[in-house]
Amino acid sequence: MPKIRDKLAALGLEIPGPIQLPPGMVLPFAWVRVRGNRVYVSGHIALDADGRVAEPLGKVGAEVSEDEAYQVARRVALAALGSIEREIGDLDRISAWLRVFGMVNTAPDFNRYPVVVNGYSDLILELFGPDIGNHARSAVGLAGLPFGTPVEIEAEVEIDG
Amino acid sequence: MPKIRDKLAALGLEIPGPIQLPPGMVLPFAWVRVRGNRVYVSGHIALDADGRVAEPLGKVGAEVSEDEAYQVARRVALAALGSIEREIGDLDRISAWLRVFGMVNTAPDFNRYPVVVNGYSDLILELFGPDIGNHARSAVGLAGLPFGTPVEIEAEVEIDG
Amino acid sequence: MPKIRDKLAALGLEIPGPIQLPPGMVLPFAWVRVRGNRVYVSGHIALDADGRVAEPLGKVGAEVSEDEAYQVARRVALAALGSIEREIGDLDRISAWLRVFGMVNTAPDFNRYPVVVNGYSDLILELFGPDIGNHARSAVGLAGLPFGTPVEIEAEVEIDG
Repeated sequence: MPKIRDKLAALGLEIPGPIQLPPGMVLPFAWVRVRGNRVYVSGHIALDADGRVAEPLGKVGAEVSEDEAYQVARRVALAALGSIEREIGDLDRISAWLRVFGMVNTAPDFNRYPVVVNGYSDLILELFGPDIGNHARSAVGLAGLPFGTPVEIEAEVEIDG
Repeated sequence: MPKIRDKLAALGLEIPGPIQLPPGMVLPFAWVRVRGNRVYVSGHIALDADGRVAEPLGKVGAEVSEDEAYQVARRVALAALGSIEREIGDLDRISAWLRVFGMVNTAPDFNRYPVVVNGYSDLILELFGPDIGNHARSAVGLAGLPFGTPVEIEAEVEIDG
Repeated sequence: MPKIRDKLAALGLEIPGPIQLPPGMVLPFAWVRVRGNRVYVSGHIALDADGRVAEPLGKVGAEVSEDEAYQVARRVALAALGSIEREIGDLDRISAWLRVFGMVNTAPDFNRYPVVVNGYSDLILELFGPDIGNHARSAVGLAGLPFGTPVEIEAEVEIDG
């Protein structure tokens, strides 16, 4: 099977660097917490290549369209893969995706959250295939997300011992 | 101990079929993801017997009353049990409920989310008893849920090896 | 290493008693669910010493300031530690914090949820140190929380076998 890194390259996708926080904001926790064969992935947001918080910002259904939000969710997956890779060394160590919790910064009249979070799920399934990539999921509307980002996604995955 | 299916029948409760999505909506993930002895249950909503999204729709505290929402949460449990059963074959394989995350589509002035999500917890405890059915839980107010459903609930359970 | 209880005493911090629910509210689930070496911690809120829901109540960014909310999150950690201790007997049995899910009851224009939830993370890291205390985390804005509390936090931790 081709390696995940090769698949990303074939798709022309780039993994962003670690998040660059605004001055004065300190986040003391781990972006990825590994324990045994379980990997807990903090809520990630879309980042530019240099790790800065990506645009567009705003609420989905108002400042951000559904199609844009799908692309944001896809970029959230790339940011999460970056954090996982920096922690476990090689994305091919992932043996199963388990849980994806998709949070959409929602305008009052929008509720197509599953379609938005498909941006994340579709990329994971494309990269890892149906056996490893499959996952339980929720996709719901939040009242607000950090930095006003439109999509934040938390996950849990399994790695080989 | 009576089987879970027998208890459901004695209570006159029916497990709905798999969700029937509206035309044009594709959900690529698993409703239930099993790995080892852990079962990750995607966010479920209330369904009619044929799997269609159940009414009432709307925000709890506005279009949907607290009592109605309790009944919705109870039906969410039935939908989740259906997905679990289709994946693991027999609900009696469940050895422990672990985590329930209850999300209520909330009107601005409503906050009795725990009372609503009790509709789910009460049924699980009635069916599985206090040892297997007990679970950690959160019950909180969301800004929106898919299809405008009033309650969505995610869970994690343990099965025998 | 000093025991967690000794560190709490040195910091002058008190663990509150079990939550005292308002009359007529029954919560049938476990505040902490232990299974094997995994501890699932229900969503906790800030409590007074006698277990009553603590003030301030309200939305962060409106009735409750960011600084106040940081302190609330710190008190949420103390309430969670109380529930964990009552279940496992000794907080020194915790071998790893895994996942923290921080929920902030948000005013429309507030989004500095990570700064608020740092009140919880900072205390956990101070008490348990960087190896045991580190955790994956999300910090997001909810439309509402039970009792109108400003912060609710769910967690998962590991204990020795």
